[in-house]
Amino acid sequence: MNPPIDLMLNHRSIRHFEDQPIPHEHIQRAVEAGQAASTSSAVQAYSVMQITNPDTRERIAQLTGPQEKVARSGAFFIVCGDVRRHRLLAERIDKSYDAETEAFLVAVIDATLFAQNFTLAFEAMGYGICYIGGVRNDLYAVDELLDLPDGVYPLYGLCVGVPAEDPSPRPRLPVEAILYTDAYPDDEEILAQVDAYDAQYIEYLRERGADPVGWSERVAAKAAAAVRSDVGDYYRSKGAEL
Amino acid sequence: MNPPIDLMLNHRSIRHFEDQPIPHEHIQRAVEAGQAASTSSAVQAYSVMQITNPDTRERIAQLTGPQEKVARSGAFFIVCGDVRRHRLLAERIDKSYDAETEAFLVAVIDATLFAQNFTLAFEAMGYGICYIGGVRNDLYAVDELLDLPDGVYPLYGLCVGVPAEDPSPRPRLPVEAILYTDAYPDDEEILAQVDAYDAQYIEYLRERGADPVGWSERVAAKAAAAVRSDVGDYYRSKGAEL
Repeated sequence: MNPPIDLMLNHRSIRHFEDQPIPHEHIQRAVEAGQAASTSSAVQAYSVMQITNPDTRERIAQLTGPQEKVARSGAFFIVCGDVRRHRLLAERIDKSYDAETEAFLVAVIDATLFAQNFTLAFEAMGYGICYIGGVRNDLYAVDELLDLPDGVYPLYGLCVGVPAEDPSPRPRLPVEAILYTDAYPDDEEILAQVDAYDAQYIEYLRERGADPVGWSERVAAKAAAAVRSDVGDYYRSKGAEL
Repeated sequence: MNPPIDLMLNHRSIRHFEDQPIPHEHIQRAVEAGQAASTSSAVQAYSVMQITNPDTRERIAQLTGPQEKVARSGAFFIVCGDVRRHRLLAERIDKSYDAETEAFLVAVIDATLFAQNFTLAFEAMGYGICYIGGVRNDLYAVDELLDLPDGVYPLYGLCVGVPAEDPSPRPRLPVEAILYTDAYPDDEEILAQVDAYDAQYIEYLRERGADPVGWSERVAAKAAAAVRSDVGDYYRSKGAEL
């Protein structure tokens, strides 16, 4: 038994929440836990916006799906890569900010290290969470709604709240399909690992009463379909170089 | 007291390690904990390579700095965004893989959600960890060394091992400088928050006997200097669209 590892292994996304707000001190605590994660050279290239305005939440719920939970969970956040502070500091000493792929990447990585601690801290306090990639369905609309300045890159939303459901964790690829030693495996080996996983994945879907489509079939269809094709242009419009 | 949150708040990067390898079952357990993190539509767009070959570790230690810990820590990993499986699956059903910024972003985010759980799980087992962004100093050289196929994007290294030092956590920006409610703050407010943090940051450096340069001064200098300017080109060379 190891409480942090047990907590991680017990993770499942929660999509239905009780109608209960989250006390501010819990949010504060989760932010502190998030900030304690590693950050590239301590640059802390992220921020998190809590959206409390019901109209704004309703609008984002529409843009992301619609996904009702975005309007209804105990709290809703948007995690942003954020180099705004860095730009202002550079400009204050009359230097120009050097936007480059590396700086954008650091922002995405820093923000996501923060986010994983942030959500795990909420789970450690008994809440359920769900990442909302749907924020990237229409970044221009999200941006306009939140009036974001240059250097702020909204990445994904987070629903947090008291769970109103208790789903089981979704099975993951076998460890051998994720952890490689010294050499990257060849294509046949990768495909064999994935095929072995499909049976387990279909079983999980059957148990939940969901459409029993194998992981590889779903992923293949998804990989061949372009979605959110304006994501790169949007981040460039906010000053990122990709 | 909340063991997972206490563990997060106690995080500090470890840069000196005892000469002790890590049992494979601990690595396996940390990978499972990492995999339990959220993943966009379950695509699991990442892999992690453990580098055990001493010559390869020595070479990566040179490329990343040199950073001796890369060659000497109990274990060394490179975390990769990975859409190789997705490409192979699409091609198997005669579809072409659609590389786009969104797909690259999902890979970076998925890999980093994995990495934060992975490292926290090691910390929960008593190990110390350090992220090695220096892997991006020369991605072409790392790529050649590991012979990576298209669709695999090395992002950063991870040193893991038994700590041979006990540094204190580095102070972070105040919560008010990270958590915003409904509206993004104006520039003056951001700069005021950062200036208040500088005094605390300098005090921390003084206590460690380090050069007492304020956070804002360091960040400003860093923000104005281009580094790793081939990062975007490298990922494009591996099939990513940015």
